[in-house]
Amino acid sequence: MELHGRSMFGGGPSSLPAEGDGFRAINPTTGESLDPVFHDASPREIDEALNLAEAATDHLGADRERRARLLEHIASALEGLGDALVDRATQETGLPAGRINMERGRTCGQLRLFAKVIREGSYLDARIDRALPDREPIPKPDIRQMHIPLGPVAVFGASNFPLAFSVAGGDTASALAAGCPVVAKAHPAHPGTCEMVGRAITDSLAACDLPAGAFALMHGAGHAVGTGLVRHPKTCAVAFTGSFAGGNALMLESHKRSPIPFYAEMGSVNPVVILPGAAAERGGAIATGLQQAVCLGVGQFCTNPGVVFAVDDDATKVFVDKLSDLLAEAPDATMLHAGIRTSYVAGQRRLRALDGVGHVGRDPDEGGAGNADATPALFTCDADTFREHPELRDEVFGPSTLVVRCTSVAEIEQLVGSFLSGQLTATVHGTGDELGDAGHLVGLLRNVSGRVIVNGFPTGVEVCPSMHHGGPFPAASDSRSTSVGTAAIRRFLRPACYQGFPQTLLPDELKDGNPCQMLRLVDGEWSRE
Amino acid sequence: MELHGRSMFGGGPSSLPAEGDGFRAINPTTGESLDPVFHDASPREIDEALNLAEAATDHLGADRERRARLLEHIASALEGLGDALVDRATQETGLPAGRINMERGRTCGQLRLFAKVIREGSYLDARIDRALPDREPIPKPDIRQMHIPLGPVAVFGASNFPLAFSVAGGDTASALAAGCPVVAKAHPAHPGTCEMVGRAITDSLAACDLPAGAFALMHGAGHAVGTGLVRHPKTCAVAFTGSFAGGNALMLESHKRSPIPFYAEMGSVNPVVILPGAAAERGGAIATGLQQAVCLGVGQFCTNPGVVFAVDDDATKVFVDKLSDLLAEAPDATMLHAGIRTSYVAGQRRLRALDGVGHVGRDPDEGGAGNADATPALFTCDADTFREHPELRDEVFGPSTLVVRCTSVAEIEQLVGSFLSGQLTATVHGTGDELGDAGHLVGLLRNVSGRVIVNGFPTGVEVCPSMHHGGPFPAASDSRSTSVGTAAIRRFLRPACYQGFPQTLLPDELKDGNPCQMLRLVDGEWSRE
Repeated sequence: MELHGRSMFGGGPSSLPAEGDGFRAINPTTGESLDPVFHDASPREIDEALNLAEAATDHLGADRERRARLLEHIASALEGLGDALVDRATQETGLPAGRINMERGRTCGQLRLFAKVIREGSYLDARIDRALPDREPIPKPDIRQMHIPLGPVAVFGASNFPLAFSVAGGDTASALAAGCPVVAKAHPAHPGTCEMVGRAITDSLAACDLPAGAFALMHGAGHAVGTGLVRHPKTCAVAFTGSFAGGNALMLESHKRSPIPFYAEMGSVNPVVILPGAAAERGGAIATGLQQAVCLGVGQFCTNPGVVFAVDDDATKVFVDKLSDLLAEAPDATMLHAGIRTSYVAGQRRLRALDGVGHVGRDPDEGGAGNADATPALFTCDADTFREHPELRDEVFGPSTLVVRCTSVAEIEQLVGSFLSGQLTATVHGTGDELGDAGHLVGLLRNVSGRVIVNGFPTGVEVCPSMHHGGPFPAASDSRSTSVGTAAIRRFLRPACYQGFPQTLLPDELKDGNPCQMLRLVDGEWSRE
Repeated sequence: MELHGRSMFGGGPSSLPAEGDGFRAINPTTGESLDPVFHDASPREIDEALNLAEAATDHLGADRERRARLLEHIASALEGLGDALVDRATQETGLPAGRINMERGRTCGQLRLFAKVIREGSYLDARIDRALPDREPIPKPDIRQMHIPLGPVAVFGASNFPLAFSVAGGDTASALAAGCPVVAKAHPAHPGTCEMVGRAITDSLAACDLPAGAFALMHGAGHAVGTGLVRHPKTCAVAFTGSFAGGNALMLESHKRSPIPFYAEMGSVNPVVILPGAAAERGGAIATGLQQAVCLGVGQFCTNPGVVFAVDDDATKVFVDKLSDLLAEAPDATMLHAGIRTSYVAGQRRLRALDGVGHVGRDPDEGGAGNADATPALFTCDADTFREHPELRDEVFGPSTLVVRCTSVAEIEQLVGSFLSGQLTATVHGTGDELGDAGHLVGLLRNVSGRVIVNGFPTGVEVCPSMHHGGPFPAASDSRSTSVGTAAIRRFLRPACYQGFPQTLLPDELKDGNPCQMLRLVDGEWSRE
């Protein structure tokens, strides 16, 4: 596949004149620029994409079975791209082929899961209250409700998952599943991967006889394209995965327009609490698991465990020594791009400069040929230091973590309750007896996070109905929403109510006799009848 | 009951020094001031109320059965206030006793309905995916999810429903049902009614052995108290019912703080389309129904039908004549306060000044003893005039409506599709044959509104599971939410996910064996087992 480097809408690359000098992807392992040149979408291209998207909304939203087939077709098309997709993605991200292949599997699995969700139909939350014509003092009309698509969604993919959280990732899959056209902002760190995936989506729309306007891909290396997408009056929702700085900036842009649902998943420090009994019983195993979680994907996961609270006793000393040995042995590895490495090194420097913060392990090495290689690191401090320095609560994106030595479990609870902002995840390690008494601590962890993990690690986000990937601000902009799991489809729907409708005018999902065989709330009772 | 006129928190009236001169309620029928003087809440009172509310969150959220009993107790307490509540509410609002009694019935019914919703439990959307320890390449952990309360909610009641959309109205009922403490802003037009209802809630919390901090009532005649509530860092969500100006101002305030769910229901013009066959077949009956809907509650409903589209034929002429006769015969009636009448008269004057807009009926009479009486009015124009003047799409709050004469149904569709912003409701009247062909029109109406009504009138909002009272902006600030009906509880919840939990640490709702006998999604299947 020869890449054209242009934004796409209406079923193919833009034929409008390319503006500006453009930009290229860079291989972070070698520092080499990759062909072709990509061009930022112009305001006119953004406008055309959104006009087409709006025009496609009713058609895309009308037929659930066709959308299910579309998602399955996209999954097959991504698989059909074979090694070409893996090659391009590894070149653009520095991630190994095995990881990209696994991520493609997850991406395709996600698309197929949403196909099932659409067919099953309970996500529509169909409700029927039948008329009571004889009710006194006034008759009750027939009232029915289901959810309908919001309209065009602007999707901003992340750099750290070039497939699963990018152009055909969870946001696009759930938006298309909901019946919403997608205008995706290509991530400038992997624009070629974005184009290949975007073309797979465009081809799938054509194959499924769905309007080409239901998908567009906008390239952009600067902020203007993202701002343009958020501000466009026909954008009906935004889904973003990435840094706090990026997500927050787009959220503030969204405040300048009529209100729309704005979903940004922005990462967190994902606190881990190790209770003393667990440290004594299996501190070594926890250290091993933690080191793996910290270094997985070169630490470039929003669920990376960035702060560990433990009681300062002998077992914790052994645990810290083990963790520090493991991190010292962990090799340097290539981050997604040189800019991320620069931020990582700056973050480490910031921590090392703080009084009371200890740094364990080797100094950062040179960044390698692409100036993108990162050295794992461990920091330690006591509870007072953690209280004094709000910087210690900020995410350092990369393979490092901070162990906070506390005097007691009560002090850990105080830090969790008063010194943590919203988190995607929170983890507790304890023995059976400790967990039996940990209700208060677990309640505190639950109050600040979207997912609480017992005796595990936060990396590894299952795609399933019960997964919640989100949390209180600033982990996410909207704590009511998840960006992983089947409930993600809800973000792109709103209720519509039908009063006094004749059967023929009702959508099939709300007709008498339940022709779609869906779970519905009929006169207050859940039923498939 | 002697009214004390003070803001309430911690189970009783504030004991902090009252600031400022205070304000009084005014009887709009007579213009007389009513005792006592009410005092604006001070920043310190707001702060104490929200600190107590936050501290009460875990306790209130812990026990569904106790919350159900609380809601039922509040309903009984409101009934127990007997005629004293009706007397005060009629004096403060000018609404007749029969209406207030009916509204109390609705308010108590709403509270008891939410008690049922809590007990039934499906609103928690409990989900369980059991572990697959043998899964390859990595085991799947046990993951469970349910919804938990957001935390303290600031509730802003409306003037036009002093009970059903005020201190113990739908927002408070659904927030308490969700497990969220409520800090209610008393409406300055009916502060005595607010105090009586607030005391009923406070007494009910004590009777149910729930923390006093779970409810507070803040008085305020100006903007400062509302702004203070929205900006307070411990406020976790806002629910507002009222004017666009008020709701929008508070929404902009909310943008200055960390993001929280903000729900404002702000009214709309509620378009009504009369298809030609229906006009010919039963134009007179439609005119009668429309006049009643326009004048109900002196037109002070957010679902008041403010714009009517009809084809300019003989039947429509007869319909307009009939409607104009009926509105001319309708007596003046007292609005909620003199300020609303001033806005209503100004709105009428604005329309009458526009070229192409005809005014039918008598000139506004004097405002009566309280300067709050309103004269019903009918305006007419053609489609071109409607297109030219965006003011014609703005709500005129009061007993008036505008009939837009169009050349064809296609022109009506064009106006609906391109010249209407978001609406709470949209209505179509048609014969059976016409409705059979009305799919496109109904789709357009659905796209701009939250509820579409066939052959009925938008006033009269049923409280039931399938009701949706909301809509695209500017009808509401968040089109995903409803302020009426059982789904309103969802506004105040967020998902929480539990991974790898031992049974003893799980909430009962997520335990094996389904001890709460709730509908849950277990391994992808809905089940009560």
